[in-house]
Formats: sequence, structure tokens, C-alpha cells
Amino acid sequence: MEADFIAWLQEQSETQAAVFGDFTDDAAIIDADGTLVVTTDAITEDVDFILDEVTPEEIGFKAVMVNASDIAAMGAYPTHLFVNLVIPSHWSLTSVKSLYAGIQRAAMQCNCKIAGGDFNAWNDGLVVTVTMHGSCNHNPPILRSTAKPGDLLCVSGPLGGSILGHHLSFAPRIGLLNELSQFVQLSSAMDISDGLSSDLHRLCKASNVGAILESQKLPISEAARRLADRDGSSPIEHALNDGEDFELLFTIKPHDFQSHPLPNELGRSLLVIGEITEEKALLMCNGNSKVPLESLGFMH
Amino acid sequence: MEADFIAWLQEQSETQAAVFGDFTDDAAIIDADGTLVVTTDAITEDVDFILDEVTPEEIGFKAVMVNASDIAAMGAYPTHLFVNLVIPSHWSLTSVKSLYAGIQRAAMQCNCKIAGGDFNAWNDGLVVTVTMHGSCNHNPPILRSTAKPGDLLCVSGPLGGSILGHHLSFAPRIGLLNELSQFVQLSSAMDISDGLSSDLHRLCKASNVGAILESQKLPISEAARRLADRDGSSPIEHALNDGEDFELLFTIKPHDFQSHPLPNELGRSLLVIGEITEEKALLMCNGNSKVPLESLGFMH
Repeated sequence: MEADFIAWLQEQSETQAAVFGDFTDDAAIIDADGTLVVTTDAITEDVDFILDEVTPEEIGFKAVMVNASDIAAMGAYPTHLFVNLVIPSHWSLTSVKSLYAGIQRAAMQCNCKIAGGDFNAWNDGLVVTVTMHGSCNHNPPILRSTAKPGDLLCVSGPLGGSILGHHLSFAPRIGLLNELSQFVQLSSAMDISDGLSSDLHRLCKASNVGAILESQKLPISEAARRLADRDGSSPIEHALNDGEDFELLFTIKPHDFQSHPLPNELGRSLLVIGEITEEKALLMCNGNSKVPLESLGFMH
Repeated sequence: MEADFIAWLQEQSETQAAVFGDFTDDAAIIDADGTLVVTTDAITEDVDFILDEVTPEEIGFKAVMVNASDIAAMGAYPTHLFVNLVIPSHWSLTSVKSLYAGIQRAAMQCNCKIAGGDFNAWNDGLVVTVTMHGSCNHNPPILRSTAKPGDLLCVSGPLGGSILGHHLSFAPRIGLLNELSQFVQLSSAMDISDGLSSDLHRLCKASNVGAILESQKLPISEAARRLADRDGSSPIEHALNDGEDFELLFTIKPHDFQSHPLPNELGRSLLVIGEITEEKALLMCNGNSKVPLESLGFMH
């Protein structure tokens, strides 16, 4: 349904579609001088979390952090957030306080002020909507649409298996792009929320390029390996297609990377996994064979 | 539940409570120079509308306009909005398009850009959340907390009976405060969303004052009279306690009002209904008798 709606919006006008969700960038750029970026994201019961499996505190934390990850992906720092609570009327005040405590913990961790909110009670499920402002500190925001053939494709950390816990407790990569930009030239970025295979597709589409991934370079999380032990999928399939990694996917100019060694700590957050290509296909290189990379991540 | 939650927030810290909903002002003031105001409001199925009684287009329109009314109450103009759609998965694409058309119509009417959004499908009811930015054009925003004893209490139009249609088709009073401020000195403002008796209580509490209303000066809408014909309440009870009028409640300095006659059109939107008092009670004056004014408006 989301895909149909976005497609319709796109028919109406490119401008309308561009503003919706992760269709182009992770956040909208508002200021004339490009320093204020704004993103909005809701998490909903039974889609983004199962109430029996999480605490209200974890839900509040996650609702803020998914937005903070979008702000980080623009090379910005969170500044203010606005929260809309739609609470099932059977909830206790204790549960609402716990939810809010999670929002506060996340806001504090992001150095972000809770600047406004709205409270609604109703008889259906829980919806927590967060709208977050970010500041680029007068640097230009980093877009999805500016990757160029020859750029190195990178991720900021291990992927896959997020459902085993990472999706509730991740730390958005706030400041990472800003730190990296002192050593390398960044050409595009986005966060990985629906799985690398889907999100790489979006980055390439926005930039009108293709990419080739090297399978042996993919950083696979411990959780992806544990999950693979349980089900029929391989660790690499989990790394490619699981959602909610909230690592960053970004591209850099190769010459910078070769000439400037990174400090160790930063180096661990710049993992080259492939290259941007002029040919608009997504390919996966496994030794000598190249196969098309399907988008099997989470589709709304 | 909302009241309990806000009370708890207030115990935690005045700052935390101040940012939530209509507890203090209609919108948060973000910029250091006070020119960016931000508000967020969600409307939910079976609370703010009954699906059988409205069109999706009307819902989209209303979701934007309730926010625009908050922006107008700060003396600001809407600039950008962000919309979060939580759509029941059984909805057709046609219904979603119609909802979005209502959002677009309202945005156009407010001269406000749809700058971002998010789409979620789930198996519960419809939630439409809008976050709106407004600009005060470098004027100071108008607060609730600055009414002073002796100020005249005013509303911008007739009240009551909104449920007969007004709540779906109202025009927020954008620009009114700015136009009025050329002729009178405004000392406080808010919009009437939960009913005059409740919202006046909020304004007085925020300003640490009381008020005396003159019952014969209350502007009563035609709809309030029609509703009174049907049920046991009086037209004046509807005007005092019905929610969703989305007129403005504001206070002005009396000397300005006496010395500067208003142009006719503006004059129709400045209806004096009483006076702010030092004594912190809300009273209703009916001829020679004064009775306490109860807050009987919509409580969340």
C-alpha cells in the first residue's frame, strides 16, 4: 500500500513524492541555508513492536532513536523533538510514564530537547509519533542522490539479526559522518532501516547509479549468525535483508580513503563493502561470480 | 488519563510539562529570536471523527487545520507541515488519495508547504498526525501567560454547535492577530479547541488571573441555537462548553480599543465578552447576578 501511494504521489508531482518518508532523503531540508533538517516517523503496535515482547520504556526509546538515525544520516545533530502519543485507553498511568521515560532517556542520549507534544487516548493500539529537528551546524546536509560511479560503498557497522535485540537498543550514528568528513570526502548517505538490499536500491535509484557489492566484505553481526543457526537462511542473507540495523550506508571518494589513514576508532565505522557503478544494476560479487542483488528487505 | 499524565509531568519538572499539548501555549517557540513556532496534533478515529460520518478528504483537511489554528493563536503564519499517516490496512488507495487531497487543500488554503511525511499501514484505526511550523515574521509570538487584570477579554467569532459541521470546515484565524495588532495592543491569545469555559480556564491559569464574562455579550452561533432546539441544553451552554470552535480567545488593553476604531471587517472579529480580573475566579455576569463559571468543555 505504501508503495502504491508513493507511486501515485510521484505521478502527481515529483515534489510531492520527494517529501514522503524515505523516498528520497531521510529528512527534509527546511532552511534556505540548509541547516535545519526535519524528519518524522511513527512506530505502531504489532508492526514495529509486539507489546508482549517489549517494555513501554523500550518503545519510547526506539520511537526517538529511529528519528535520530535519520537525522544522523543527513550529517546533522538532533536538536528538538516533538512527540505525539496515541495511547490505548486501558493503559495504566505507570505504563505511560515508563513510555515517556524511554523517550527522555533517548532524548538525553541524543542531546536533544523535548520541545512539544500531544496526548491522545483511544480504544485501539499504541502509536508513538516523533518529529525531530536536526542542525547541520552550517555544513551542507548529506543527500542520497549524490553518489557517483567509482565511489566506494561503505557501511558503519555489522548488519543483520537486529530482531534479537539490536532494534530496541541501538545507538544512532550521530556525529559519525561529521567526524569522517575530516578524513574522507563523503558523497552520499542514508540510514539502513529496511535492510541493506532494499536501502542500497533506494540510494542507487536516487543517485541514478548502480553498485557492486563484495559478499566477503559484508560485515555480519553476531546476531545474524545466531539467527542463521536457527532458521534456514544464511548469515549473509540476514545481513542483506533484515531490517532495523540503523547503521549508515554511505559513499566516499576513493582517493581520499587511500591517502589518509583513519584513526582506529573511526576506521571501525568505515567498512568498505563495494563500489558505485555507472551501470544501473545492483550486483553481488562472490569470488569470480556476479549475481543480481534482489531487494528482499522489509517493504512497507 | 491525559490530565493525570500532565500532572505527573508537572511534578517532574515545570519545563517538561510546559511543552506538552495545550498545557501552556498552543505551539513551542524554538528559535532563539522567537520566530519559529512548532505545534503537533493528531486526530484519531472514533475520538475526533466517526468514519461513517465524514469523508477521508474532510479528515485530512481537519488534521491540518487544527494545527494551523494553533499556529494562528501564536500570531504566526504556517510555513511547513509534516504529516504522519497511520492507515488501516483494509483502506483502499482511493481513500488514502482522498485523505491526502484534504491535506493538500488545507495546506494550500494556509499557504503552507507539505515538507515531509511518513506512511504506516496497520490493522487498527486511522491516525493522522500533523506537525506544523509557523513563522512570526520576527514579531514576538503571542502567549497565553501574559493577560493582565483590566484587559478586555475577546473572541474572534460565534461559538457553539461546531459538531453540526463547523469542526470539519472551519477556516483558522491565520493573520487575524497580526492585523488586529495594528490597531490594538494584544496581551495574550490561544485558540478555542475544547470549549470556551475550559480554554478560558487555561488562559487564566497560565496568566495567574481570573475573568468575568458577560453572558449577554457571548456570540452564539446559529448551530448552537439549532442544537439547543434539539437537546435540553441552552444555546449559551453550547457556546460555553462545545469543543472545536477554533475561534481565537484573546485579551487586549482597553485604552487602545477605546481610542482606535477598527475597520468594519476586523471589528467583526473582535468581540469583547468580558474582562480579566485580579481575583483568580472565573465568573459569569448575567444582568445583576454573578455565578461561578464551571469548566464543562471537552476534557481529554
